Amino acid sequence: MLVRYKNTRERTEMICRPLQIEDYVVQPIVDVSPPKWHLGHTTWFFETFILIPYCTAYQPFNPDYNYVFNSYYETVGNRVIRTDRGNLSRPTVDDIYRYRAYVDKEMSKFLGSSIAPSIQDLLILGINHEEQHQELLYTDIKYILGHNPLFPAYDVNYPLPEPTIKPSSDFIRIDEGIYEIGFEGNGFCFDNELSRHRVYLNNFEIGTRLVTNAEYVKFINDGGYHDFRHWHAEGWDWVKNNNIRAPLYWHQLDGEWHHYTFRGLEPLQLNAPVRHVSYFEAYAYAAWKGLRLPTEFEWEAAARQFTWGQNWEWTESAYLPYPGFAKAPGAIGEYNGKFMVNQKVLRGASEVTSPGHSRISYRNFFQTNLRWQFTGIRLAK
Amino acid sequence: MLVRYKNTRERTEMICRPLQIEDYVVQPIVDVSPPKWHLGHTTWFFETFILIPYCTAYQPFNPDYNYVFNSYYETVGNRVIRTDRGNLSRPTVDDIYRYRAYVDKEMSKFLGSSIAPSIQDLLILGINHEEQHQELLYTDIKYILGHNPLFPAYDVNYPLPEPTIKPSSDFIRIDEGIYEIGFEGNGFCFDNELSRHRVYLNNFEIGTRLVTNAEYVKFINDGGYHDFRHWHAEGWDWVKNNNIRAPLYWHQLDGEWHHYTFRGLEPLQLNAPVRHVSYFEAYAYAAWKGLRLPTEFEWEAAARQFTWGQNWEWTESAYLPYPGFAKAPGAIGEYNGKFMVNQKVLRGASEVTSPGHSRISYRNFFQTNLRWQFTGIRLAK
Amino acid sequence: MLVRYKNTRERTEMICRPLQIEDYVVQPIVDVSPPKWHLGHTTWFFETFILIPYCTAYQPFNPDYNYVFNSYYETVGNRVIRTDRGNLSRPTVDDIYRYRAYVDKEMSKFLGSSIAPSIQDLLILGINHEEQHQELLYTDIKYILGHNPLFPAYDVNYPLPEPTIKPSSDFIRIDEGIYEIGFEGNGFCFDNELSRHRVYLNNFEIGTRLVTNAEYVKFINDGGYHDFRHWHAEGWDWVKNNNIRAPLYWHQLDGEWHHYTFRGLEPLQLNAPVRHVSYFEAYAYAAWKGLRLPTEFEWEAAARQFTWGQNWEWTESAYLPYPGFAKAPGAIGEYNGKFMVNQKVLRGASEVTSPGHSRISYRNFFQTNLRWQFTGIRLAK
Amino acid sequence: MLVRYKNTRERTEMICRPLQIEDYVVQPIVDVSPPKWHLGHTTWFFETFILIPYCTAYQPFNPDYNYVFNSYYETVGNRVIRTDRGNLSRPTVDDIYRYRAYVDKEMSKFLGSSIAPSIQDLLILGINHEEQHQELLYTDIKYILGHNPLFPAYDVNYPLPEPTIKPSSDFIRIDEGIYEIGFEGNGFCFDNELSRHRVYLNNFEIGTRLVTNAEYVKFINDGGYHDFRHWHAEGWDWVKNNNIRAPLYWHQLDGEWHHYTFRGLEPLQLNAPVRHVSYFEAYAYAAWKGLRLPTEFEWEAAARQFTWGQNWEWTESAYLPYPGFAKAPGAIGEYNGKFMVNQKVLRGASEVTSPGHSRISYRNFFQTNLRWQFTGIRLAK
Repeated sequence: MLVRYKNTRERTEMICRPLQIEDYVVQPIVDVSPPKWHLGHTTWFFETFILIPYCTAYQPFNPDYNYVFNSYYETVGNRVIRTDRGNLSRPTVDDIYRYRAYVDKEMSKFLGSSIAPSIQDLLILGINHEEQHQELLYTDIKYILGHNPLFPAYDVNYPLPEPTIKPSSDFIRIDEGIYEIGFEGNGFCFDNELSRHRVYLNNFEIGTRLVTNAEYVKFINDGGYHDFRHWHAEGWDWVKNNNIRAPLYWHQLDGEWHHYTFRGLEPLQLNAPVRHVSYFEAYAYAAWKGLRLPTEFEWEAAARQFTWGQNWEWTESAYLPYPGFAKAPGAIGEYNGKFMVNQKVLRGASEVTSPGHSRISYRNFFQTNLRWQFTGIRLAK
Repeated sequence: MLVRYKNTRERTEMICRPLQIEDYVVQPIVDVSPPKWHLGHTTWFFETFILIPYCTAYQPFNPDYNYVFNSYYETVGNRVIRTDRGNLSRPTVDDIYRYRAYVDKEMSKFLGSSIAPSIQDLLILGINHEEQHQELLYTDIKYILGHNPLFPAYDVNYPLPEPTIKPSSDFIRIDEGIYEIGFEGNGFCFDNELSRHRVYLNNFEIGTRLVTNAEYVKFINDGGYHDFRHWHAEGWDWVKNNNIRAPLYWHQLDGEWHHYTFRGLEPLQLNAPVRHVSYFEAYAYAAWKGLRLPTEFEWEAAARQFTWGQNWEWTESAYLPYPGFAKAPGAIGEYNGKFMVNQKVLRGASEVTSPGHSRISYRNFFQTNLRWQFTGIRLAK
Repeated sequence: MLVRYKNTRERTEMICRPLQIEDYVVQPIVDVSPPKWHLGHTTWFFETFILIPYCTAYQPFNPDYNYVFNSYYETVGNRVIRTDRGNLSRPTVDDIYRYRAYVDKEMSKFLGSSIAPSIQDLLILGINHEEQHQELLYTDIKYILGHNPLFPAYDVNYPLPEPTIKPSSDFIRIDEGIYEIGFEGNGFCFDNELSRHRVYLNNFEIGTRLVTNAEYVKFINDGGYHDFRHWHAEGWDWVKNNNIRAPLYWHQLDGEWHHYTFRGLEPLQLNAPVRHVSYFEAYAYAAWKGLRLPTEFEWEAAARQFTWGQNWEWTESAYLPYPGFAKAPGAIGEYNGKFMVNQKVLRGASEVTSPGHSRISYRNFFQTNLRWQFTGIRLAK
Repeated sequence: MLVRYKNTRERTEMICRPLQIEDYVVQPIVDVSPPKWHLGHTTWFFETFILIPYCTAYQPFNPDYNYVFNSYYETVGNRVIRTDRGNLSRPTVDDIYRYRAYVDKEMSKFLGSSIAPSIQDLLILGINHEEQHQELLYTDIKYILGHNPLFPAYDVNYPLPEPTIKPSSDFIRIDEGIYEIGFEGNGFCFDNELSRHRVYLNNFEIGTRLVTNAEYVKFINDGGYHDFRHWHAEGWDWVKNNNIRAPLYWHQLDGEWHHYTFRGLEPLQLNAPVRHVSYFEAYAYAAWKGLRLPTEFEWEAAARQFTWGQNWEWTESAYLPYPGFAKAPGAIGEYNGKFMVNQKVLRGASEVTSPGHSRISYRNFFQTNLRWQFTGIRLAK
């Protein structure tokens, strides 16, 4: 367990290694957090939920950090409001790395002795929580660098996304019937994957691959962003108010589409999956094709029959509790349930998801207008 | 058919009879439309979708009215933006009644001869559309008068809501299994009630009656509006940003709760169902009770076993298309589908729903923060 | 005095005579008040500042009206917030005319007996106050009708503005020296015209006539709205954020400029003075000409040598207290002083100013972005 | 001249020496710029207005920097919008110091040979421009550190403000008459100090010292922030909308007033001048005392008779052009004139003004709600 803890903590710091100190500080939009905040917040999680309550000899590194690094846990007290995270120059990056080292040393000591199963559960939750922030670190770093007018690379050798392989058939057919949905097994899962339950699915077909950039360019060229008929009323308002004309990170230079990648600004890879689209765009693309997005239940029922895992996939499903869902008591209970309104479920995983973090029952979720995650499109009918 | 058309048209005007001319004009919040706008818009619907395309001799009453009374049909051209409806003093109320009389006379002539089944479908849609606006007329008039500092009555003899009768058992139990959901039969239904399909429901219990004002007062007195644990994160922001402390129309005078009704400001009826709560409040109340709201599928499967019809009931279900849902071609296709995102389904009907308008498969829908409809709470577990 | 009171009161109602009831109710922008509010507020002024304190037998018409018709007098208690004036359908127009008749009858009785000089001063202030609202009634009615998509006329026989007569010389020269500024004489003036004091003026020249529509069209055609160099930084932001391309009420139909007048939409009168420009536009026009606007002191020193009185003229002067300015005690002291920041002085009068209301020392004032008054441009150098 | 250039450039870097890299990056409010932006912008000024046009061999350090470091000069092309300055992690602080070194080396070479008088004027303007940014660096650093929840010190040995010495008389009397206002002499001045001209002043008295913190506490304790009568209408809105209760940087800890200083959070120095008040507060304080603020002309006429220079002093004067004011052609003409609307003049200098930078005719100016400068109060009557 200690090994897994250490590996997770090291991987977080590895992700930040290519950054300049300045890159750790800024917050260009409210959805993005400064990397130094992620470094501190994931540390605060272990300090607050394990060391302070269960390790009696523990001295907090700095009592003011609770205020700075609490994200949204109302139970745990006051906090810096989200929009202010990028306004804090202190604690410095060095301070936060010292904070990490201090907490890691104390955790190592604490995990050296035998710990109760309930604490072990908190530890595993903390590790999974940090893995979620590893993904957010990647997406937030991409936004911070990708919205700088100098378009600096994160890593000039970062691998390009794999092209979408054309399978023999574009759609597979799934038969009507009762399907079991939700987490099954003994390992860790988040509370929102429970409880496993039955759903009835009608006959449907689901795409064996994701929509490509080349296909999405056709939607653009066909005037997809100018025809209200493809869009939800709320999506159409979003397009007009924000003057949306292409996925996030796309730029037209001398008539050619480019996109910002971790390697810097590059010509658009036509045969790679389209990414960084909002739910509104995913829905409009599907409507333009005369098709639709799958529900999360259809996705889960079919997922063993297609490849997934490099891009999060928007589903048509609203993020709602499963039958029998119950919040944990105390602050941990704030983890998922309180977000179960006005968001859409994403299924799968992305190229920046931590290894082993996702699974077939995993439920990610975002508001319908957000695009800074590696979000793609799978079609259904 | 002509009789039904005329009855519907007359009922709309009957609803407006107690109004002063000034009451027809104002729009205190964006969700409320001025009554004169409703009068014009429902007329425009018949003119635009029946008389102009199918009655060749028809001369439009005033070509500028398309701009003024189009609500959201992008297909049918430009329109006054929604927030501007209350800024228009012209056309006057008299002009609009003349417009109604003109269109009604032309419709009577047109319906006097035999009409094709497809036009008959449009006529029935137009009648149902006007019935929906009859309900909105009531709720919008309530808001217009109820937010005036003079609290004028709509009708001092308007009947009080019936008290919630305490049935022998508070909950009924429904067995796990496959249920058929959606409209069944030959009559009219809206596109969002189709197609009828199967869902799998787990064992559940559902309340036989709605939550009362007396019960809701307990939630308030227990600090329900001050404890974040009962609320969605988005709901909690809504409470704090809008300083919400009670349902809409509630006022505390000398320590006693009153509420604005169509009769004016009255002492709160403790044994009547609570109304004018948002989805956020309905959810928080249920969470405070350790219970939950039913899904729309649970509601439909159980609805023959309890009384409903005086208050719209919030469900936990997001407003999404049923399997097999398809938009109609052209402007009529904009009717429902484009709103199927970030809204919650309400089931039932309210005391101001037009007689015969609702049914067990009927799906109403609103954003989670809205309260000016007669929205109430049924619990499930 | 009673005669003057009655004439003023009747003139207010005469201005409203061409209106439909609906026109009395709406408030399309925050700066515009509904005509019925003006009718009530001017009446409230006499009731609150004369009848209630000095006429012991007086019974207020309706105690709730203080809340509805108080404009901004913090001393006199709470009030409907300004943006809500257009959301009130009650009191009705009829109610307000009854309110006027009631107060007028009581005032007639009260003024029939001899009254103290201090009350006489309040009466004269009330009459001048109502005259100010007569001008606002005209400008607000123009906005309400002029922003309706049907462009209804206020009065099809309303006289056109007189053309700007070209005098023999465009500028007159005023010599450097000390000038006396401010109200002189025994009649009524507002507190902001006092005290009369000396200013030192350098040599300057001032236009003998106002800028015409034809001249302003040249500014537009020369790209005046697209060249930041003519504008204040704040004015340039205003142009860009509001997409300003011409004075208020101007519309280009089939390539020809039209403007909304009290007679309806009409072809632009090229030889009439340009109106409905903001201070930002007046400044930019002058800068484009290589000239400037006069200060209010220059204007007052020169005004006997040119024609004025059909359009309010923007000056370069900020609205500030004169040396020796002192607020009256109590609510009347809120009349002018509290607006003496971030506004510009206008001098002159307009075609809708009440007869005899303005004078050479009169100071009007508005924020730099406002255009719904009859504001024009006189140049200086 | 080269010596003065080098001293100025070194002083800028000296001001930043106590900062951590993170402190250079953030922009907590729109009025504050990140220190690294000031470092780059002042360098860009010399590069853009001297090296590029006049030093033919000069190679720009990085062509993209024009976009990043242009502040508001529309003539010089596009630029990062002001609110985005804190969203840029690149160029890094190191990059910017390299940019400074590069430009300084080129400037040294260029200034080594003889330069034309017109270029010399630009050089002096650039030096004065950088001195202005030195003051902004201090005030922006104070805001960045003073709004961090950890309240870090800039320099724990930073000297405390000197107490306000009580002179023998609180007011001096100035006689009515004509006074000469504006810059006189051969040295450098900004365009807004010209041309020297006559104004007529009435008899007035002006304070010999500034208002102290102890005096301002009395205003607070007397309910000054809760009584609308002291405030402009716009100031009162500002107080209510922003919940203002004390000057910026004041905090009440256990009932005792503290204020953030460059040394960290310290008990309030009662006998020091009050600072960090807005114009609205300065005006309200004066009104509460039954006094007023001086005009900038009164200030200039009297300034040789009292001590000034540690705090900028709000005047009652709007920031307007002097008679005969003329903009320079080209981008330099954008320096001052375009801000001459809706701002108030400040006179004097502050403890963080660069040595020798201010003078008796110097005119500073800010919007009426701003407080992050070292702004104080001198009274007049």
